[in-house]
Amino acid sequence: MDLQSLQSVAPPGQFPEPERSGVYRAIRQRRDIREFRDDPIDETTLARLIQAAHHGPSVGFMQPWDFIVVRDMERRRQVKALFERERQAAACFYDEPRRSAYLALKLEGILESPVNLCVTCDPTRAEVVLGRNSMPETDVYSTCCAVQNLWLAARSEGIGVGWVSILKLPQLRQILGIPHHIVPVAYLCMGHPRDFPEEPLLQTAGWRQRLPLEQLVHFDDWDNTAGGDSWPELQDALYTCTIQRS
Amino acid sequence: MDLQSLQSVAPPGQFPEPERSGVYRAIRQRRDIREFRDDPIDETTLARLIQAAHHGPSVGFMQPWDFIVVRDMERRRQVKALFERERQAAACFYDEPRRSAYLALKLEGILESPVNLCVTCDPTRAEVVLGRNSMPETDVYSTCCAVQNLWLAARSEGIGVGWVSILKLPQLRQILGIPHHIVPVAYLCMGHPRDFPEEPLLQTAGWRQRLPLEQLVHFDDWDNTAGGDSWPELQDALYTCTIQRS
Repeated sequence: MDLQSLQSVAPPGQFPEPERSGVYRAIRQRRDIREFRDDPIDETTLARLIQAAHHGPSVGFMQPWDFIVVRDMERRRQVKALFERERQAAACFYDEPRRSAYLALKLEGILESPVNLCVTCDPTRAEVVLGRNSMPETDVYSTCCAVQNLWLAARSEGIGVGWVSILKLPQLRQILGIPHHIVPVAYLCMGHPRDFPEEPLLQTAGWRQRLPLEQLVHFDDWDNTAGGDSWPELQDALYTCTIQRS
Repeated sequence: MDLQSLQSVAPPGQFPEPERSGVYRAIRQRRDIREFRDDPIDETTLARLIQAAHHGPSVGFMQPWDFIVVRDMERRRQVKALFERERQAAACFYDEPRRSAYLALKLEGILESPVNLCVTCDPTRAEVVLGRNSMPETDVYSTCCAVQNLWLAARSEGIGVGWVSILKLPQLRQILGIPHHIVPVAYLCMGHPRDFPEEPLLQTAGWRQRLPLEQLVHFDDWDNTAGGDSWPELQDALYTCTIQRS
């Protein structure tokens, strides 16, 4: 096989190897970070991460997102107090020993991280949004995809991101002056992490395990999880495929 | 400056250059694809893309997603008919000449693409989900992040992905046999694209333009978009930063 035919095997838009594996490495090594060093994020890097989010996909090219960069300690103390109240309330839903295990987990780095970032969604950004008529919720879906862009780009920069979802929206709006019609989608803590753990904290802590992928794949119809005669290759591949571990 | 001190400048978790730029390239060059070649996706690649989605972040490590791989043409014809009906209905919300412009856009590749993938969210996957008490919607948020993982990994493989949101959920559930309590989050068309356009189709078609990033960033409080004395560096960086264009 000559070089010409070897090259024709790779799809034309495929990235060359170090770039392609960089994407999978970011996906594999991204973690929800809750322990931060206190040195700041370089401002150019922070701007680049927000730019990465801004290049997320959006329904009808709506770009419904806004970004509130929060460094002010007084506002962050208020967010932390809100988190603490919600965390205590959530603990009531667990019985012992799960409750103590829950309360022992470190779940955020609101005050320790050098910067917080609230990513919001404005459902009113455009009057009629192409593609949003049948599924209005695609505006917040777009915003989530933007967050994931930022999260993966941050991983490639060695920057840790932790998503704090133990917050109530009305109070969060009040602390950051967000209008009622704007949806705060993600409240993120960002900074240089103490480390990037190999596996998710909740897996290491024995809280939950990663589900076997082959249990989650259906073939043509929800009820067909067995695959069958026409799906052997994909089924084999699902059992054996791994994305880069380290 | 010796090598030691040079190395100490880069954050410890930062990827080496070709890998880091691969992540930004995927973010910059990802497109919503609607025109496909008809050759199939290699099954190992498809499995790897689903695996990439499965490594998305999820609230409380809930992993609420399922994946329905749809190759059956009869079901896809039904999805296409559903899309057509919704597309016509959505056209009613535009006046001319916008209406004709809308109807002239190619918005999906349901039948031409070699495979469709429906990514769903199961809100009942775990009884009490850590971190989901205050914001129950974080289950679908997690699923969207998983979709974005798949989308970026696909771009690095030269595989195109198009998200079809012009569908109604009850009918889609019926076509694919999805139980009522499961939320179909994304219906994706996947395959080798005719090309990866440089800019989003809706931008090229003059439908909407990319918003200037600096309009979307707020400082400590929603009402502070001007920044001010304590934010000059970040503001400068927001104006000037770009992520790789090609």
